[in-house]
Amino acid sequence: MAGYNHLFIPGPTNVPERVRMAMNVPMQDMRAPDFGDLTIPLFEKVKQVFRNETGRVFLYPSSGTGAWEAAIQNTLSPGDKVLMSRFGQFSHLWVDMARRLGLDVDVIDRPWGEGVPVEAYAERLRADRAREYAAVFVTHNETATGVTSDVGAVRKALDETDHPALLMVDGVSSVGSIPFDQEGWRVDCCVSGSQKGFMLPAGLGILSISKWALDAHKRAGFPRTFFSFEDMMAHNDNGYFPYTPATQLLRGLDVSCDILLEEGLETVWARHHRLASGVRAAIDAWGLKLCAAEEKWQSDTVSAVVVPEEVDARDVIARAYTAYDTSLGTGLSKVMGKVFRIGHLGWLNEGMVNTALAVAEMAMIDSGIAIEPGSGVGAAIDHFTRTPAGKIAEAA
Amino acid sequence: MAGYNHLFIPGPTNVPERVRMAMNVPMQDMRAPDFGDLTIPLFEKVKQVFRNETGRVFLYPSSGTGAWEAAIQNTLSPGDKVLMSRFGQFSHLWVDMARRLGLDVDVIDRPWGEGVPVEAYAERLRADRAREYAAVFVTHNETATGVTSDVGAVRKALDETDHPALLMVDGVSSVGSIPFDQEGWRVDCCVSGSQKGFMLPAGLGILSISKWALDAHKRAGFPRTFFSFEDMMAHNDNGYFPYTPATQLLRGLDVSCDILLEEGLETVWARHHRLASGVRAAIDAWGLKLCAAEEKWQSDTVSAVVVPEEVDARDVIARAYTAYDTSLGTGLSKVMGKVFRIGHLGWLNEGMVNTALAVAEMAMIDSGIAIEPGSGVGAAIDHFTRTPAGKIAEAA
Amino acid sequence: MAGYNHLFIPGPTNVPERVRMAMNVPMQDMRAPDFGDLTIPLFEKVKQVFRNETGRVFLYPSSGTGAWEAAIQNTLSPGDKVLMSRFGQFSHLWVDMARRLGLDVDVIDRPWGEGVPVEAYAERLRADRAREYAAVFVTHNETATGVTSDVGAVRKALDETDHPALLMVDGVSSVGSIPFDQEGWRVDCCVSGSQKGFMLPAGLGILSISKWALDAHKRAGFPRTFFSFEDMMAHNDNGYFPYTPATQLLRGLDVSCDILLEEGLETVWARHHRLASGVRAAIDAWGLKLCAAEEKWQSDTVSAVVVPEEVDARDVIARAYTAYDTSLGTGLSKVMGKVFRIGHLGWLNEGMVNTALAVAEMAMIDSGIAIEPGSGVGAAIDHFTRTPAGKIAEAA
Amino acid sequence: MAGYNHLFIPGPTNVPERVRMAMNVPMQDMRAPDFGDLTIPLFEKVKQVFRNETGRVFLYPSSGTGAWEAAIQNTLSPGDKVLMSRFGQFSHLWVDMARRLGLDVDVIDRPWGEGVPVEAYAERLRADRAREYAAVFVTHNETATGVTSDVGAVRKALDETDHPALLMVDGVSSVGSIPFDQEGWRVDCCVSGSQKGFMLPAGLGILSISKWALDAHKRAGFPRTFFSFEDMMAHNDNGYFPYTPATQLLRGLDVSCDILLEEGLETVWARHHRLASGVRAAIDAWGLKLCAAEEKWQSDTVSAVVVPEEVDARDVIARAYTAYDTSLGTGLSKVMGKVFRIGHLGWLNEGMVNTALAVAEMAMIDSGIAIEPGSGVGAAIDHFTRTPAGKIAEAA
Repeated sequence: MAGYNHLFIPGPTNVPERVRMAMNVPMQDMRAPDFGDLTIPLFEKVKQVFRNETGRVFLYPSSGTGAWEAAIQNTLSPGDKVLMSRFGQFSHLWVDMARRLGLDVDVIDRPWGEGVPVEAYAERLRADRAREYAAVFVTHNETATGVTSDVGAVRKALDETDHPALLMVDGVSSVGSIPFDQEGWRVDCCVSGSQKGFMLPAGLGILSISKWALDAHKRAGFPRTFFSFEDMMAHNDNGYFPYTPATQLLRGLDVSCDILLEEGLETVWARHHRLASGVRAAIDAWGLKLCAAEEKWQSDTVSAVVVPEEVDARDVIARAYTAYDTSLGTGLSKVMGKVFRIGHLGWLNEGMVNTALAVAEMAMIDSGIAIEPGSGVGAAIDHFTRTPAGKIAEAA
Repeated sequence: MAGYNHLFIPGPTNVPERVRMAMNVPMQDMRAPDFGDLTIPLFEKVKQVFRNETGRVFLYPSSGTGAWEAAIQNTLSPGDKVLMSRFGQFSHLWVDMARRLGLDVDVIDRPWGEGVPVEAYAERLRADRAREYAAVFVTHNETATGVTSDVGAVRKALDETDHPALLMVDGVSSVGSIPFDQEGWRVDCCVSGSQKGFMLPAGLGILSISKWALDAHKRAGFPRTFFSFEDMMAHNDNGYFPYTPATQLLRGLDVSCDILLEEGLETVWARHHRLASGVRAAIDAWGLKLCAAEEKWQSDTVSAVVVPEEVDARDVIARAYTAYDTSLGTGLSKVMGKVFRIGHLGWLNEGMVNTALAVAEMAMIDSGIAIEPGSGVGAAIDHFTRTPAGKIAEAA
Repeated sequence: MAGYNHLFIPGPTNVPERVRMAMNVPMQDMRAPDFGDLTIPLFEKVKQVFRNETGRVFLYPSSGTGAWEAAIQNTLSPGDKVLMSRFGQFSHLWVDMARRLGLDVDVIDRPWGEGVPVEAYAERLRADRAREYAAVFVTHNETATGVTSDVGAVRKALDETDHPALLMVDGVSSVGSIPFDQEGWRVDCCVSGSQKGFMLPAGLGILSISKWALDAHKRAGFPRTFFSFEDMMAHNDNGYFPYTPATQLLRGLDVSCDILLEEGLETVWARHHRLASGVRAAIDAWGLKLCAAEEKWQSDTVSAVVVPEEVDARDVIARAYTAYDTSLGTGLSKVMGKVFRIGHLGWLNEGMVNTALAVAEMAMIDSGIAIEPGSGVGAAIDHFTRTPAGKIAEAA
Repeated sequence: MAGYNHLFIPGPTNVPERVRMAMNVPMQDMRAPDFGDLTIPLFEKVKQVFRNETGRVFLYPSSGTGAWEAAIQNTLSPGDKVLMSRFGQFSHLWVDMARRLGLDVDVIDRPWGEGVPVEAYAERLRADRAREYAAVFVTHNETATGVTSDVGAVRKALDETDHPALLMVDGVSSVGSIPFDQEGWRVDCCVSGSQKGFMLPAGLGILSISKWALDAHKRAGFPRTFFSFEDMMAHNDNGYFPYTPATQLLRGLDVSCDILLEEGLETVWARHHRLASGVRAAIDAWGLKLCAAEEKWQSDTVSAVVVPEEVDARDVIARAYTAYDTSLGTGLSKVMGKVFRIGHLGWLNEGMVNTALAVAEMAMIDSGIAIEPGSGVGAAIDHFTRTPAGKIAEAA
């Protein structure tokens, strides 16, 4: 099929050319004397992306799911009581993992399209006089529904009750794209992966932890080997790894962190907000709704678009893929067939957003949805040409 | 700057991923015993793209300009009288070259935006009872103005007068993209380059010649070494070259020919017509005009869009480049500042065309042109969703 | 530093150019309708490399260590009694993992340089009337010492006592390089990684299991999520994965399996034997000894060379790296400073082996070891020129 | 075939990984406003490699042969008398080109294996009272025979007679590898190509000229278009080109110049001398002779090894290629079958040289030449371990 494949799923995201170049390398010895020249500065760069100043990061050859498991295994113990909420496929899966690993999960369910119920969290924390909750879990950006939750508010709820529970955050589809402040919010474990805001192929689970998580680690009772902090730390401190690391991805990560830090995190966030606003203007012009139930929950990295009831969103996605060589995100689980998703995170600019919108229009029209041709793209163009780019204020 | 650079100049065009992979190679010995396993089938594939059945092709490490020179040096003699026409920057440059090389050029000037004046050619050929014209030159697709001329009609004019002049064609921005039939039109020398329809980086001058051109070569009086047919033939017949060839590009060319032939030339042409029609629908919706003076001359590989008089097209192009990371083609020479060009040839699909149109809209709006946001993209979307893809009939 | 880095560690190994090309790709949607067109045939190709006919394979974004953990978590239960042996760093680490995960490990220690004590295994299996051993572990190729053990003999010992224990094999540095017959030896779990015989960057843990391992899985009591067979199977059957797979490596793996299967496994094994024999001829000519205690244990994928007592092998390795841009393998743990290792597996030919040997000679001479210049390379050359290549008999 | 192909021809040479990465790029607009940010500093870097301080360089999409033609066309006129010498295939071809282009060539023939006859040149220059010689040609490094000539001595001969002839030098296989001093020797035109010391794929003809060559250009009477200095200068001054340049190679050239200048030209030259000395030690140990007739002519970039009379060198080369995946250079024309060549220039280190020597030994032994296995490699190893690397003095 002629022409580029257009990738607008919420991860893997488009890989910057500089990163792609950097990964076009022969193999190297991960025990070479100068290997630390790559890795030790890299750990620091990754910490900067998380705004983690006093903790450390772990880079696992795995995925975000692996890093979820690493976070739990290394800081908690079987039977620990934890507070979680569930309002989309990824928050659902994290609850599932926690239970299968043997945590005692107190889960608050919310309709898909809502976010972390901060008030309910605050209430349960206040009620927890015995300090039984060992950890509170937050899915910062629910990738399945395009919902961003308020991590800072959860930290506030913990602080107000002076609760010692660890704050565990899934930042897989948020870190490196939208505001994230590990130090300011005192996030104890933040999980991410290489294939979203870090703009790399999948294959790295990235875990950024606070010094308090390191304290908790000393008491953590799960057996662990592959994901063990202790093994990692013993080697990482000298720039090495306890087993062969995914060197090609580390080289890529080094460059992708450079790209993010050169652009500046605030500018990166502002860009994501600007581009996401264009997408939302288009959806509005189409007369369609987001899955996100309220404006405050609208994600700047992914939009889940609800199609009219009589249409199966999978037809739109299949049409975009087969006729227009474009990958849109499918609806997962409960919202399968009801939504298609546009990933608008990572290495992205206005031209690419317009590609996504134009193809979505074509695929929707072809699938029988009554869309005025050009209406969505036009609304986005109108937004982009009226709103100055690069203003940090936009992201505030 | 974040996001891909969008390339919509009329060459270099976007390189297919398969081609890019194929060029990511270490060097090899161009005198190895099995080198011909690459090159001998490659010569045949390239001939197929030209629809050259009974002649041969030459692959020079150079550019289209080099292949222009090669065609003249190898088939003509200083002082030869030739018939040319001039209606854009590239037809202008070819005339300039012919004169500097010492040909006696009979040039017909036409306004930029028109094509080869077939009637005037026919008239002069009829008048040339002495058979003084050694060659007739045709710029098949004038890249500067987006004008496609009728090569077949020129062949007909030659045949009707039974004129023995060679038919020399500049197919740089046509071959591999729009209908070209070297055998049917008995084109004696057709010049092309790697960076247009062949979807490669610049660096190869591609020259496809008829058996009559080989006859003419025996009498051709220009001194020549680098571009010499005789040196090339002596080595090419065994799969080798008289000097080190650009092996990396040959490897890429092998794959790009495969891509063209797998898609099928008719399908490739139909795709270009479909995509170009979408672009023209957009230009019409914007209320703007093409540089091409008549519909019959509208090129399916490049559109030169005339901006309103009060606007400098260079501002539009600069804005697209600096604000939206998109390369549009500039107006050359006489039409500088008056047009911007959208290259729509090569490795291209609907999503890419819409990207070009959306960015053009943004850049024009930012430059003060009154464009209804989404109008052009909408017209293209309307065209694409109403017209079935892949119909060969479209290109007819 | 000028010139290629020469990589002769026992993994990561040199990546074939075809594989490198195949990994130079943009990202793709791992939920696309045609994703299974890549993965479903790939699972079959990987099985062929293991000679696994009736079981299945799992491809984890992790490492060999992760696949070790996956094998244990998915087929055994905490407290299970298992039989292991320890005679090098990797067999040591596997014992360590098994214990940390809560297995009751009956470990037989042997001097480093020996292999799996088949007789002792047989004896304990005979003594195990109660059938308490749930599994027997074999490190097929101990990468730290260059020792290959006899997996078939362990299977025979199991069969002779009709013992139902699972046979767990670490094939990280053997599969795809030396004879391995999962079906013939009825290996229940064979662990490998991408960066050895599969000639890829690190980043995939590859686990090949028998149908009996799948039965065992139903009773296996470890909690598991990231490495869970059940989650993998639920998705793999349709060509998908429970979380984002390392698509770039899957594309590479597809090509590296093609390369192995096109060369033919027997020919691959014969090539490794031929090249390893050349290396051993060189070591002999240098007057040095292998770490492998007996000829039967000499590995065809890695040789650990014992340096004279007065020399620190790390100096040789450092010299090779800094002066000659060559990576040799370091001695690990107990043999640190005593040996350097030459990895001779994967994408390798005679020229590369000679490079390794020549650099080893230079580094040893520079480190004060009395080596006759050219003696080792000469012995290898003598071997290579006297022994016909590509004879399958060689591997017998 | 397994393992890397080993490339030891005298060009194309091995491409450094950084260069390969830099060329793994999508296409870009060669008329973009910031294109000069790449090219203008690049022209300066290339000049530094030539030690050209007061002239300029031209980068043609062509080859060294094209740059030969460019030099003649742009500085001389048909019928001009020039002094040349011929002692190998490339000096032969340059004479042939000069004659075909219409120069009046006074050629001095010398046996293949000798270099430029400086005394004979001096004599003719002294005899040329009428100052009829418009140019004197020097093949700095005859690639076919491995002979380096003394450019400085020719300059001295010119100066001693105060002769105004232009000094034209073929530096294709010398520049960037062995001492070259355009300013010191007042070389007027120095021709090179991308695929030798510049460590790039073939595809660029590189021409470095003095200010005197620019004066001569004003009087030069050859017709020229593709290679025209005037067209190049008109565009280069702003960072652009008169036709589409080979951007991918320009990006590579930018990095390869960085690599050369970071290593330092003197260090690069010293490295080539050291590596070449190792090769010559090996040839001596084999009991074979160089084609170069005297020590003063021995090239540090390529060695032509004369095989025993009863052997056809082509068998050695074919054996190296088919059995050991190694490309050695073939004997050209007069020395075909009599020599094989080892290219030892560009991105090269001791390990690579030893690979070449070891494979040459194997291929010679297989071809029936009585070589003591390891003798050549041993001699090289002895040289490398006794001689400190990186001493600039070595190149003196």
